This record gives sequence, C-alpha cells and structure tokens, in this order.
Amino acid sequence: MSARPLLIVAGIGNGSGTGAATARLFAKKGYRVALIARNAEHLNRFAGEINSEGGEAAAFPIPDYSYKSTLSVFDTIFAHKWATEGPSDFRVGVWNTGAGVFKGFLDVTEEDITNSLHVNVTAAFAFSRRVILKFKENEIDERGKRGTLIFTGATAALRGNTWTSGFAPGKFGVRALSQSLAKEFGKENIHVAHAIIDGSIFTQQGVARRSEQDVEKYKNDLDSRLDADSIAKSYLYLAEQDRSAWTWELDLRPAHEKW
Amino acid sequence: MSARPLLIVAGIGNGSGTGAATARLFAKKGYRVALIARNAEHLNRFAGEINSEGGEAAAFPIPDYSYKSTLSVFDTIFAHKWATEGPSDFRVGVWNTGAGVFKGFLDVTEEDITNSLHVNVTAAFAFSRRVILKFKENEIDERGKRGTLIFTGATAALRGNTWTSGFAPGKFGVRALSQSLAKEFGKENIHVAHAIIDGSIFTQQGVARRSEQDVEKYKNDLDSRLDADSIAKSYLYLAEQDRSAWTWELDLRPAHEKW
Amino acid sequence: MSARPLLIVAGIGNGSGTGAATARLFAKKGYRVALIARNAEHLNRFAGEINSEGGEAAAFPIPDYSYKSTLSVFDTIFAHKWATEGPSDFRVGVWNTGAGVFKGFLDVTEEDITNSLHVNVTAAFAFSRRVILKFKENEIDERGKRGTLIFTGATAALRGNTWTSGFAPGKFGVRALSQSLAKEFGKENIHVAHAIIDGSIFTQQGVARRSEQDVEKYKNDLDSRLDADSIAKSYLYLAEQDRSAWTWELDLRPAHEKW
Amino acid sequence: MSARPLLIVAGIGNGSGTGAATARLFAKKGYRVALIARNAEHLNRFAGEINSEGGEAAAFPIPDYSYKSTLSVFDTIFAHKWATEGPSDFRVGVWNTGAGVFKGFLDVTEEDITNSLHVNVTAAFAFSRRVILKFKENEIDERGKRGTLIFTGATAALRGNTWTSGFAPGKFGVRALSQSLAKEFGKENIHVAHAIIDGSIFTQQGVARRSEQDVEKYKNDLDSRLDADSIAKSYLYLAEQDRSAWTWELDLRPAHEKW
Repeated sequence: MSARPLLIVAGIGNGSGTGAATARLFAKKGYRVALIARNAEHLNRFAGEINSEGGEAAAFPIPDYSYKSTLSVFDTIFAHKWATEGPSDFRVGVWNTGAGVFKGFLDVTEEDITNSLHVNVTAAFAFSRRVILKFKENEIDERGKRGTLIFTGATAALRGNTWTSGFAPGKFGVRALSQSLAKEFGKENIHVAHAIIDGSIFTQQGVARRSEQDVEKYKNDLDSRLDADSIAKSYLYLAEQDRSAWTWELDLRPAHEKW
Repeated sequence: MSARPLLIVAGIGNGSGTGAATARLFAKKGYRVALIARNAEHLNRFAGEINSEGGEAAAFPIPDYSYKSTLSVFDTIFAHKWATEGPSDFRVGVWNTGAGVFKGFLDVTEEDITNSLHVNVTAAFAFSRRVILKFKENEIDERGKRGTLIFTGATAALRGNTWTSGFAPGKFGVRALSQSLAKEFGKENIHVAHAIIDGSIFTQQGVARRSEQDVEKYKNDLDSRLDADSIAKSYLYLAEQDRSAWTWELDLRPAHEKW
Repeated sequence: MSARPLLIVAGIGNGSGTGAATARLFAKKGYRVALIARNAEHLNRFAGEINSEGGEAAAFPIPDYSYKSTLSVFDTIFAHKWATEGPSDFRVGVWNTGAGVFKGFLDVTEEDITNSLHVNVTAAFAFSRRVILKFKENEIDERGKRGTLIFTGATAALRGNTWTSGFAPGKFGVRALSQSLAKEFGKENIHVAHAIIDGSIFTQQGVARRSEQDVEKYKNDLDSRLDADSIAKSYLYLAEQDRSAWTWELDLRPAHEKW
Repeated sequence: MSARPLLIVAGIGNGSGTGAATARLFAKKGYRVALIARNAEHLNRFAGEINSEGGEAAAFPIPDYSYKSTLSVFDTIFAHKWATEGPSDFRVGVWNTGAGVFKGFLDVTEEDITNSLHVNVTAAFAFSRRVILKFKENEIDERGKRGTLIFTGATAALRGNTWTSGFAPGKFGVRALSQSLAKEFGKENIHVAHAIIDGSIFTQQGVARRSEQDVEKYKNDLDSRLDADSIAKSYLYLAEQDRSAWTWELDLRPAHEKW
C-alpha cells in the first residue's frame, strides 16, 4: 500500500485565512493535513470540517510558538495514527504564522519586539529544522523533489515603514531564513519558497472588525482584497513545481491594489 | 458559438525554448496560438507540429522586431481566418524575445547596445501597446481579468554584472516596463507579470553547441537546467490566477542552481 | 609642474541643477571642469560664471546626445587648451543627463521611448567608453584609484510606476550599466557609482513653473526639496572615497520626503 | 559656553574595527565620544588612547546587550561628568554591534539564533529608543537635523545564503528597523542611515587568525580589504549631510571585491 502524502501547516487561526484554505485545498487533492495552531477549540472544529468533507485532517494544538513547543509538536504529528491505514509521506510544510504590532516605534515594547522575533524567526527555525530533517530522509519523487517548504511573507518582509518597526524586522528575518534555506538545500532537492502577500485577506477576523454594511462591500469587492483560496492555489502550484523550475519568491496582490 | 481563447506569443526561436513550450501547452489547453518570430521556415514548421497534434496554431513571421513591424503583425493576426469557425478571444500575450551580447564592456558596439534596447524595450512597447489596447475591449472573465501579459526576464534583469553591460540594460528596461504596466493597468483588471529565468534552458541551440557526450550529460542533468515545459506551466499558472491574487514577479531556477 | 585634475560633466541644463552644482563645487576644489550640454548659450554663460569666480571651466556644447556626438565631444575636450598652463589629469566623470516622459503608457510614442533609451543608455555607453578608456591610462593615485565615474539616477531607476513607463526603462537601463561597469572595472581601480535622487530638486526650471507665492514657499521649504549643492557634496565625497571602501549606490532625499 | 557635540557608539571590539575608527575620527573632529562595549579592559584602554591623543572619550562597559542593559547604559552616559567643562550635545549615535554564527542551518542552535536576534535587533531597539528620545529634545541644528543614527550592516542584510541562516535574519531585521525609523523620524529631522559593509575589514582579530606571512599580504593588499578608517569617514559624511539630501543606505566595498 502506498503512503498518503502529508501536509503540515502551522498557523490556522480561526479557519478562514491562508493556512486554513491551504489545508482545505491540499486535503481535496488527497493530502493528509496536520494542523498546528494555538487555539485548540478553533483547530479541532476546523479539522472536523475537513474530515466531514471527506478529507483527513488532525489537529495538533500547541501552547505557544516557543522553539521547544514548535520542535516537539512534530513528535506528536509523526506518532499520530490516522483514520485511514498506511504510512504518511510528509512532502509539504507551510509556515503561516507570525506576530507583530502596528504602532509608532516609541510605543513598541520590549515584549512586542521579542515576541515578534520569536514567533516569526525563532519558531520558524524550529519548524524548518524538523521539516528539513524529515525531508532529507525522503526519496526524490517523480517531480524531482524531496519536499517543499513554504513561508507566508508580507510586504513588510521587503520594506520597513512608519508603523511597522514592530513587525517588519520579524518578517525580514524569516525571509532571510527562507532564502538561506533555499540556497542551502536546493542541492539536496528540497524546495523552499517565500510568498509575499501584499494586501488584506478576506477573513472572519476582518469581518468581525467591520460594520454589517461594510462587510457586504468588503465581501463583494473582489478586486481589492486577497482571497485565501487563491493564495492556497499558489501554494499548491509551488508544491507541484518540478525540479527544473523552482520559484523561491513570488508576490500576490489583488488586481486593484496600489503598490 | 462561444469564442475560442487566443494566445499570442512573440519569440519562438527554433521551437525548443520557452515560447514554443508555452504555445504547445496553451494549445493543449484549448487556446488558439498565434506565433511571432523572425525565421519563417522554423516558425511554419513549428506551427505545423502543433496543428498535427490537434492544436490550432498559425505562424506570423516578421522581418524584424522594429516598433513598426511589431505593431503591424497584430493587424495580420487579428485578420487571420482560423481553420475552425468562430471568433477568437485574445486573452494572453507572451513577450519572450530579446537581444543582447555577452562581452566585456569595451567590446560592446553602438549597434550591439541599440539593437538590445530596441528588441528588449522598444519592441516590447509596441507589443504591449497592441495587447493592452485589445485587452481593454475585453469583458472581464470569470477569473476577474481582461487578459494576461507575461514578459520573460532573466537574472540580468535584476543585476548588472561583468560581461552583461550589453545585455542587462535591455532586460532591466523591460522589467521596468512590466512593473509600470502592472501598476497602471491592474485597476482595469489587466494582469501583467514578469518571470525571472535564472539558469540555462535545455534547447536545441544548447544541444548544437555541445559534444555528443556532453549532450547526454546535459540532457540527463535534470537538476541543473531549466526545462522549457516547466516554465510554460508557470506561464499557464500566471494566466489562470484570479483577480484576488496576482503575481507580478516570480523567479524560476533549477533545483541545483547556485545563486 | 603637476597636472591639474579634470572633471567632465555631462548635463548642465540652465545652470541650477545637479550637474552645475557639481561643476561649481569641484571647480572650488581645484578641478578644471569641462561642461557638456546641448544649449550652448546657457552653457557658455555658466562656464563664464565659474571662471569669474576664480575657477577654470570650459563649455563643450553638443548638438545632441547621439552616440557619435557623445563620443566625439571628448576629442574636443582632450584637445582643449586651458587658460592656465600645464596638462590636465582627468579623474572624475559625471553623467547627469537623461530624457523621459511622464505620461500614461498609451500616450508614450515610439519617439518618446527611443529618445529616452538613447539619451539614458546609448549615450551613457558612449560617455562611459571614453571615460573608462582614459581612466585606464591613468596612474593609480594616492587614494588607490584611476578615476571615478558617477551616474545620476532617480527613484524611477528602482521602481516602475504608473506614469513612468516612458521614463523608468531608461533609468533602469543606466543603473544596469553602472552596476556592470562597477563590477567589471573595480579590479582595475576604476570606481563607478550611481546616486538615486529621490525627490525634487530646487532649480530655476522648477521656479519658472510656479507662482511667485509658491516660489517663496518652495524656496524656504528646505526639508522638502533637494538642494543641488548638497547632491554635489555627495559626488565629491564619492570621488574622494579611497580604494578600501567604495560605494556603488546611495540614495539622497530630503528630510521630510515620504517614501 | 556652547555645548560640545557628543557621539555615542556601541560596539568597539578590541579597538581596531569600525566602531573604534569612528570614535577616533569623531574625537578628532571635536566630538566627545561615549564608548559602549562588553570588554571593560579593552574599552578602557581604547578610551585612554583617544584621551592621550587629545580627544575626550569615556568608556561605558555593559555586561551584555540585553534590552535592559542597553537602555540603562544611557543613564550612565547622560550622567557622566566629562573632563572638560560644559554640557554635551548628543548628535550622533552609531550602532555597530551584532552577533551571529556562520554554520550550516542544521548546526544552528536555538541559542545561536536567539542570541543573534537579541543583539542585532532587540538591543538595537533599546539603543534606538534612547537615541531617538534624546534627539527629539534637540534643537534643529544649522544642517537641519536633530541628530543622526547610523547602523552598521552587512551583505547578509540584503541576501540570505548558505552558511548565513544563523546570521542573516538578525542583519535583515536591523535593516528593517533602520528603514522604518528613517521613514518615521525623517519628518522630525532625525536622520537614520544604514551602511552595507561588503567585504572583510582589516582588524586585530583578523590579524590574530593569520600566519605572519599572511598578515603582511593581508595588510598590504589595500584593494581587497576594507579599512575601518575609510568606513569611519563615510559615517562622518553621513552625519554631516544636511537636511536636503539624506542617505538612508549606501554600500561600501574594496576596489577589487567580487560581488
């Protein structure tokens, strides 16, 4: 019996953003999906949704994105007994979490910046470590790869700005990590990519912050906001790129975005 | 009867590179393909190949990539009577041509540099002009776009280097054009993208320059050279991106490329 | 008798911008200055100003920035008999000219774009050729250089934008040239630099376009506009950098500029 | 009695690198210099050297580059009683410290990366906080500035690479901080700059790692290594830029550096 492919994605939020859309799309494509996030309740409900739609998802809540927690959740994932029989073939990792504050520089506290650096960079190191160590054990598949590791980035990964001193350093940092990994492990047929999400995504959190009237406008203004499902398609596309033409970085923005 | 989608691609070479692979892939996906290149013989033979495989291609040779020739070939294309009945729905343009010399700066002649600028930039202006004017007449499709215009770039579009003074200015220039167009016409739902091809592509020209033994090695070293078919897949992916998440720029390189 | 250092600067305009300020500052520092521009009347008047202030300037009007004219003006410069005796020691070249239009893409004509490419890139090739060929004959000076070649760039050299498709390709192109030259000739102790001027410069042309009231405000708003004399100081700083720490690129913008 | 200008520089090392050269140069230009570093012995000796050459330096050792220590050393500096009478006018801050490891990614430990992020980014936040709060109290000087804050960067601030995953994220991070600060505080006439040091600097540490023969070669190969004194000159140049033309970023590399 052949192994089922496995996606591990960290950063599911309330189930309406990039991580969740990615999990849903890969589940439809036949991947088992291991979901990592901090809110166990949301996470379990979301895993249940995928399972009720015929997918195979499991929730792996973690207490925090400390280096240690991020490393050790992989033990739990790799020991997990899936509903369907047979082994898993871990092929795609998505790091979709982060932290940061949007404030004037003088309002950024020590805690703000250390937290942002820890979640964006230090935890990403732990995640990448487990992903790459496992990928190195994989056989090269028919696409010429041992696995694909994707990082969700932002405009703040490319440019510091007023109000982003408490956010941009972490996003710059994880971009640096992704480029170093792409160069170091490309020669071992491990593909590392970084997606610049430039614009706001239509999510439940976004909806919660708006008036009812505003939500209608926001929902229908398809040209001005990113759809998480479309971002997920780009992640699938990256995972499916064969060895001859890999993308390290692409940008994604709505048609009418000013940039 | 609904219109068949049309791809127009400039730069087919001898039929083994990016332009040709793109034409072939889009033809398989149901596009009519209009092929522009300078060598009429190669071009006709390549169109014949696509047609014999069940696609619908037509050859539009041009004498040179002057501004005027590049503008006027569109008149011929738009007047073309296709084998199958019904109108064409022009949706994707690919600018895949260019010119340049790899020499020390002091060996670059006036003709070298003006030719490189004319083909890379001035002709790209003419091509873009006809593409965008036509796209503006299109209805917005179910993906939220009037059309997609893709430029083939290179590492030399990002960095000048020793030996590239006769090449990089033209590639930088067309990158600038593509970014200006992406920003100007995004709000009219026209998607403009630029692909950085970083590495060498396996082509017939490449083969012709090598010894037999070397060709075998080159052919089989799938990790170290770009496959035109894989680049073509990325162009199809770009053309299919919906309005909520458009990529302006992505890089493509082989797994083992050093960069 | 030791040779007097010579600066050659192309692009003087009406005598109130970067090229003119650079000429004035280097003249004060003891350089002979050779001035290249299209408007002979302005140019002669400006050379006269420098001479009346104790400097030594000569005007070298050219009919146009064609490749040929740009090459041949150097013959005239190198044959020039200066007022003071003794040879010239050509050490600094400044390319401060350019051309471009700010229009929507569909209004950019073939002439607009070819003119922009010719002045920004092709003429810069001719200028650089003569500069570098001469520098190669120089002895390495006490700063460890044979000469310094500086290009005036703009924000449009880094980013294409709406309204800059008729300008950015040329500015990108000359930036590519400057980077190629910096890498190719650094090892021969020739220093090539590129300055990104980000913001508007206080010039006579700027004044002419404004109302009297506006001019007062503009003149006094020292935080919001570039002063050509300050740019000139940065060019002098670049020319004086010793071999151990050369700058290829720096940006210059007013304190209150938004970017 | 007018106030003497004060430079505060963090990161002095053993007195032969960028921080030390900057202190020495500014001392010669009439600045009081406050020196921050971890090794009290080296620091005191170096301060003594400056004082014996007629400068006015004081050593402010800190136990570590924690956020708290970095904040509080400013209390000591601002309370310091200088040898000459009269107040200090704090105008220039230089952040010249950092930490990181050059290893393959899988050898980078949690401690390596958190230490690198803390020194490069978190401590830089603390330093910047004290610098900017003080600058905000300053009058705008005759150059149109309240103060200049300079960060020492590296090639690893622009590009991740194999072997730099334990270094580049911190350097990317501090570059992001510097750009955010430049944009946020430019409008308050506070100048923030970031210097990319691309190449190796001739230092005592460098010498200690080499054989005697090698040291001679290294010492005399002026084209291939950065001289800290030359970097210091560029910092002085940045500090002296007037409000109309500020540089955020410049690169510095030896004439023969390959890049």
